Amino acid sequence: MGKYLLNDFIVREYVENALKEDVGFGDISTDYICANADLTKDFEVCLRSRQDGIFCGEDPFRIVFEVLSGNKVQVEFFVQDGDFIEKDKVLAKIKGNPRHILTGERLALNFVQRMSGISTYTRQFVDIIEPYQVSMADTRKNTPNFRLFEKYAAKVGGARLHRFNLSDCVMLKDNHIALLGGSIKDAVLKVKAYNSHAHKIEVECDNYEQVVEAISANVDIIMLDNMSLDKIKKCVNFINNRAIIEISGNVTLDNIEEYAKTGINVISSSAIIAKAPTLDLGFDYLG
Amino acid sequence: MGKYLLNDFIVREYVENALKEDVGFGDISTDYICANADLTKDFEVCLRSRQDGIFCGEDPFRIVFEVLSGNKVQVEFFVQDGDFIEKDKVLAKIKGNPRHILTGERLALNFVQRMSGISTYTRQFVDIIEPYQVSMADTRKNTPNFRLFEKYAAKVGGARLHRFNLSDCVMLKDNHIALLGGSIKDAVLKVKAYNSHAHKIEVECDNYEQVVEAISANVDIIMLDNMSLDKIKKCVNFINNRAIIEISGNVTLDNIEEYAKTGINVISSSAIIAKAPTLDLGFDYLG
Amino acid sequence: MGKYLLNDFIVREYVENALKEDVGFGDISTDYICANADLTKDFEVCLRSRQDGIFCGEDPFRIVFEVLSGNKVQVEFFVQDGDFIEKDKVLAKIKGNPRHILTGERLALNFVQRMSGISTYTRQFVDIIEPYQVSMADTRKNTPNFRLFEKYAAKVGGARLHRFNLSDCVMLKDNHIALLGGSIKDAVLKVKAYNSHAHKIEVECDNYEQVVEAISANVDIIMLDNMSLDKIKKCVNFINNRAIIEISGNVTLDNIEEYAKTGINVISSSAIIAKAPTLDLGFDYLG
Amino acid sequence: MGKYLLNDFIVREYVENALKEDVGFGDISTDYICANADLTKDFEVCLRSRQDGIFCGEDPFRIVFEVLSGNKVQVEFFVQDGDFIEKDKVLAKIKGNPRHILTGERLALNFVQRMSGISTYTRQFVDIIEPYQVSMADTRKNTPNFRLFEKYAAKVGGARLHRFNLSDCVMLKDNHIALLGGSIKDAVLKVKAYNSHAHKIEVECDNYEQVVEAISANVDIIMLDNMSLDKIKKCVNFINNRAIIEISGNVTLDNIEEYAKTGINVISSSAIIAKAPTLDLGFDYLG
Amino acid sequence: MGKYLLNDFIVREYVENALKEDVGFGDISTDYICANADLTKDFEVCLRSRQDGIFCGEDPFRIVFEVLSGNKVQVEFFVQDGDFIEKDKVLAKIKGNPRHILTGERLALNFVQRMSGISTYTRQFVDIIEPYQVSMADTRKNTPNFRLFEKYAAKVGGARLHRFNLSDCVMLKDNHIALLGGSIKDAVLKVKAYNSHAHKIEVECDNYEQVVEAISANVDIIMLDNMSLDKIKKCVNFINNRAIIEISGNVTLDNIEEYAKTGINVISSSAIIAKAPTLDLGFDYLG
Amino acid sequence: MGKYLLNDFIVREYVENALKEDVGFGDISTDYICANADLTKDFEVCLRSRQDGIFCGEDPFRIVFEVLSGNKVQVEFFVQDGDFIEKDKVLAKIKGNPRHILTGERLALNFVQRMSGISTYTRQFVDIIEPYQVSMADTRKNTPNFRLFEKYAAKVGGARLHRFNLSDCVMLKDNHIALLGGSIKDAVLKVKAYNSHAHKIEVECDNYEQVVEAISANVDIIMLDNMSLDKIKKCVNFINNRAIIEISGNVTLDNIEEYAKTGINVISSSAIIAKAPTLDLGFDYLG
Repeated sequence: MGKYLLNDFIVREYVENALKEDVGFGDISTDYICANADLTKDFEVCLRSRQDGIFCGEDPFRIVFEVLSGNKVQVEFFVQDGDFIEKDKVLAKIKGNPRHILTGERLALNFVQRMSGISTYTRQFVDIIEPYQVSMADTRKNTPNFRLFEKYAAKVGGARLHRFNLSDCVMLKDNHIALLGGSIKDAVLKVKAYNSHAHKIEVECDNYEQVVEAISANVDIIMLDNMSLDKIKKCVNFINNRAIIEISGNVTLDNIEEYAKTGINVISSSAIIAKAPTLDLGFDYLG
Repeated sequence: MGKYLLNDFIVREYVENALKEDVGFGDISTDYICANADLTKDFEVCLRSRQDGIFCGEDPFRIVFEVLSGNKVQVEFFVQDGDFIEKDKVLAKIKGNPRHILTGERLALNFVQRMSGISTYTRQFVDIIEPYQVSMADTRKNTPNFRLFEKYAAKVGGARLHRFNLSDCVMLKDNHIALLGGSIKDAVLKVKAYNSHAHKIEVECDNYEQVVEAISANVDIIMLDNMSLDKIKKCVNFINNRAIIEISGNVTLDNIEEYAKTGINVISSSAIIAKAPTLDLGFDYLG
Repeated sequence: MGKYLLNDFIVREYVENALKEDVGFGDISTDYICANADLTKDFEVCLRSRQDGIFCGEDPFRIVFEVLSGNKVQVEFFVQDGDFIEKDKVLAKIKGNPRHILTGERLALNFVQRMSGISTYTRQFVDIIEPYQVSMADTRKNTPNFRLFEKYAAKVGGARLHRFNLSDCVMLKDNHIALLGGSIKDAVLKVKAYNSHAHKIEVECDNYEQVVEAISANVDIIMLDNMSLDKIKKCVNFINNRAIIEISGNVTLDNIEEYAKTGINVISSSAIIAKAPTLDLGFDYLG
Repeated sequence: MGKYLLNDFIVREYVENALKEDVGFGDISTDYICANADLTKDFEVCLRSRQDGIFCGEDPFRIVFEVLSGNKVQVEFFVQDGDFIEKDKVLAKIKGNPRHILTGERLALNFVQRMSGISTYTRQFVDIIEPYQVSMADTRKNTPNFRLFEKYAAKVGGARLHRFNLSDCVMLKDNHIALLGGSIKDAVLKVKAYNSHAHKIEVECDNYEQVVEAISANVDIIMLDNMSLDKIKKCVNFINNRAIIEISGNVTLDNIEEYAKTGINVISSSAIIAKAPTLDLGFDYLG
Repeated sequence: MGKYLLNDFIVREYVENALKEDVGFGDISTDYICANADLTKDFEVCLRSRQDGIFCGEDPFRIVFEVLSGNKVQVEFFVQDGDFIEKDKVLAKIKGNPRHILTGERLALNFVQRMSGISTYTRQFVDIIEPYQVSMADTRKNTPNFRLFEKYAAKVGGARLHRFNLSDCVMLKDNHIALLGGSIKDAVLKVKAYNSHAHKIEVECDNYEQVVEAISANVDIIMLDNMSLDKIKKCVNFINNRAIIEISGNVTLDNIEEYAKTGINVISSSAIIAKAPTLDLGFDYLG
Repeated sequence: MGKYLLNDFIVREYVENALKEDVGFGDISTDYICANADLTKDFEVCLRSRQDGIFCGEDPFRIVFEVLSGNKVQVEFFVQDGDFIEKDKVLAKIKGNPRHILTGERLALNFVQRMSGISTYTRQFVDIIEPYQVSMADTRKNTPNFRLFEKYAAKVGGARLHRFNLSDCVMLKDNHIALLGGSIKDAVLKVKAYNSHAHKIEVECDNYEQVVEAISANVDIIMLDNMSLDKIKKCVNFINNRAIIEISGNVTLDNIEEYAKTGINVISSSAIIAKAPTLDLGFDYLG
């Protein structure tokens, strides 16, 4: 079976920039050592998990060594993105010139530790709400210039993602609507006169009255922002499948199941990316 | 008094790339609203803290709006990077065309929330160890392509940083030394024959015997990796100011003071960046 | 009133690259002339229409001269993007150092001639179908690396655009569906398990049977590809507002009204961009 | 025999940028399908002509798939740039992972349709004037940031091209000459004091008197701008091989032969690029 | 009077890249000093010549400080590119924030020292040969990625330059001609069938026989490569103004006058750029 | 044995930019020739020394042809960077499509001629001072945007380099110290409160008194700027191994041994890069 993938040529550009950031004028430790070393024998190293979790980051990990070695270092993976991994499992073997392995180790780990951390943490949220047919979505609260990897990792962890950026879904908030005088219906109608038929319209609602107005404007998605469980249920009843219902605001692993039971469709949260701890993965040198 | 600063022209490039990532083919929500709005009146917005902390990110925050508006949006700050801020404090006023403010809000917040989070968290470590004349340092475990901002934020929080990348300090680890046969002394001497007089040499030691050997090789910095407090003290006694002593490994807010008391000079930890929670900051629209 | 706009900082990058393409090692004609000329007196030039049409391209036109002169050349526009312009109308005055005006003239014209051509041609399609509440959309058949300007010009001409690229709307064609065995319903359900709630799903149908299947899969948009008017009407009746209906294929100014009368919602066509003749605009030197 | 070629490493950069423009955060249609598909069997597809014409664009077409697949998709061409192709001819076979083929199809076609369109249209002009030993040239009226491909396509269609940009030939127009007081001779002499011996000097002339003056200044090329056939003949007689004679202005397929008969050397026209219709080429999926 | 100029937007890109190269993660010396300094008082500094010469590099020098300070540092020049400067002359005053002046000093000097060195050295060659109506040209032996500045400096020193790169003039050497079988005439005729009328054709000749052949092929420029004075004179007589004559090969300040007397038109030499000593210029801090 | 190396992926970017600079819209000489030539037979060419020296530049030389040919041209080296080469030695063989060899020749030579020139010249300085255990260092007086290659070549010639840029070593000069009131000790202490433990501090001293003060501030490196031999010796005696001693200023091949005898550790000089003559290397075409 196939799997959802990043595009190598795009990952390569990120990796090259990150290597330039980390290598500067050269990895002087490795360079000066290798100038004295016998490099005819390949190094062999394995990537090992030091914690349970969901693995993510195969592509950037591999490409770090491809870029450094001109495809000469061999990286063999025993897991795929999205696989559950137990502590102390050998995830990959890396074999080649020690120069390239030593220089690339830190960056390769920086990618997989952060991405696997997000996948692992997201999966915990998803596992709780999946039985209720509720899907998990992320937000635009990402690390600048690293969104592609963070969103991908959330997806690998089971999230179904929100819009990628400001151009693929209309999302009207308080301040947008205030600019046109305060009427949700009026704002939505004016936006519809411009909007592509290929793009949805979502409206953020703070209270029941706004929800009523949004439904009258026939929006695609209603986002209930920071509402109590009771208010959410009232809105769900009113909406009655006439729009997708998304909720947002201070969702945690502890309280998410209660939200999932309310009949909503999507829970969006910045936490799955912003609060995900890195997953502990490391290199073991096999000599 | 002056302060430590980022270079605007470099920040501008990061901000432009991050805006392209977030704006895509255009902020369609804002565009379609503004196509119907009266834009002759400026928007006025303030940045407000929702938590106590150390503020950081003035430069990228300001430059987001400079880039979007061609320097027309006015950003006035009431705090500087490094200032302690209390909850509910107005940190800055932003005034200008609503189009630019609405489009830039999320990215500007993404910078200051993440950077202030790092400064705030780092400061907690620094406050504990400063009385012992021990300084805090970061590591190379950063988000790829975002290191400049993470290191800067750690510095603003009181850290004194480690090397920026692989080219400004030699740092020999197990695997480097293994490549030359296993003798620290031999490895250091061979490296010295290549190394610039302007760059220091640091050696990572796992045990007392390695420390003895490193001192005999006259290195600049000895890094005690994951040693117990007792072992650290033994090494400190032996080194006796002949090298800077850095320790690393699983330092937390709870245990760091014990390490600081041992007579070492520097504690390095990836936690100050990788585990820092974002600081809650938000926009209030003044109309 | 506001208007739909491009982002200056993005346009600037396109303009700088296009200027490098055109300037190479320097505009030697202008350079050698100006080395001998008295440059204390400003040049004054106007942009004039040589044909009726819809104007488009204010931003890139202005930014060409901003980039060349460091914002010193003054460009004053008497029209806005989207305005109808008659032949022989003065559209803008450009005043400043002749060096910058002479070097920038061709590129500035290349932008407005092409963009105004698209707006003008698109408007002709839109004018015919608007009375039927049918909207015009473009396709992904654009000039590589120039899509932003082509889509913007189509929009200024009254089109409401299709998706911007491959990531903002799912669009399943024959070959996608064939890969999963040929069942539209099956393919759509499998895609829905991955798709963001913020993104629509469109399916391309070649015949009535496919339409029936697509409706059963509850898709957002059905694209009727190259169907006869009779078949289109049959599909419209069946769909009965359960999905947005888009048609595509060989639409011309002559036949488009017939399609618009069938009850469909959107007509997409590559012609509005790919077949648009450039609009004749030129510089008159006032001395 | 060899042939005139683009440089792969330059084409690759254009292709990568165009793919980023079109792929955005990922080809979600193809990604979600492929996540459910059996990808062990290669796709096979052919590029087929739907119209007679001159083929052009082999390099960018091939490189689209090279970039997407890391050189794994195989592209086999049965024609070369410049070959005449009949309707319904199989031009190339593409074989590989369906993911890469489906994602790259549109961009690959955008290149060859536009480029073949230019080659085909240019060839029509060239065929008429070649018997008179007159060559066809293009102008600088191109699509910004796409000139390399447009000029190449014109060349493949038999044009011999004009200067590439502002730095490879001096071309003095009215406004240049006005800046130095109005004397062509004076302007040319002043320019000659700066100009490289490796670069030609061309002067645009609107009337016979200017031609006389230009000849007296010993220029390399005289461009007769928008002159009637009679005036052109008069100038040709006067010039009498003392300079290359180029004409420009409103040349069409209908009137070009008359111009070619006048004894001039070169006809330049923006039409061969700007007015060229795209050539209809498409993919047939072989399964 | 005007002067030959670089384009600011292009210089800016070179300067930004060079600053990134030199600044890395920050100018730590200046940053740490300025963090403790009173920066309310502007620094004032002058650029002073420590040697006689021809000044060159005003644009990149100024732009270094513009980029660093966002146009806040003021740079006032008392000389223009091409002016003769005596030792100990104040060439410019720089006033502003010491942070920007201290960080930019070295790069600004690197530009003007190298460029003024080339202008000064080139001028010495030009002064000798100008009385003979012979012009000086450079070659393509430049520093990679720095050609624009080196060629500009040679021009400012009085050279009239050769082609900028491989696309603005045909230049056939031995190996080109060998590829087509060895006949210069045949090679030139074949090239003419492709070449733009806007581009010249130059042929490199090693001996008299080749010159005879080149003339028979009616080339624009004949380059006599490494010929003795006698052979050159023989060729000059034969050519008799039917082509521009360029000589090349081991020209020095000592022997160049002899070559200039032979009746040739152009002397090209890599020495004016590759062998030019830097001109000694420095900063004096006025406090 | 290994050797000190550049990173291919970084060199590749420099080479691609330099090729774009040199190729422009195409190598028209080679293109027009090859369009007529039989390219089925490979060209074979060798790189030959025309002078004795130290070879340097293997990586960029090889990568020029890799980039142009997509790794198809074969480059086989018979020497390594740092090897002494005698006049008339065959250094490498290059075999492949003549198009790629002819287009790349000049740029490949530009790299190795300049880099070998620096290595050769540097080696002369190093050979004189090595017996005194004094090492040679470069400065930041480099060609903008070419520093990586110049520093690498100096290293290959035996230099041990100074800091790479402004962020890897603190270096305090007169003007830095003046900003804090003039006391070296005070300035150093203030800087130490910010500086990373991984970065050294160097102070430039003009006289003995400053040296005394610098030692009292416990700096890592003292740079004696433009001092006479007597003064240097006095400082060396005083410093007595408490800091690394570097001297700078007007060092030549003639006087450097006298300086090396004084007991200092490092001599830094811009001359090894800025004054190095290019080494004469060329291509011989084997057919």
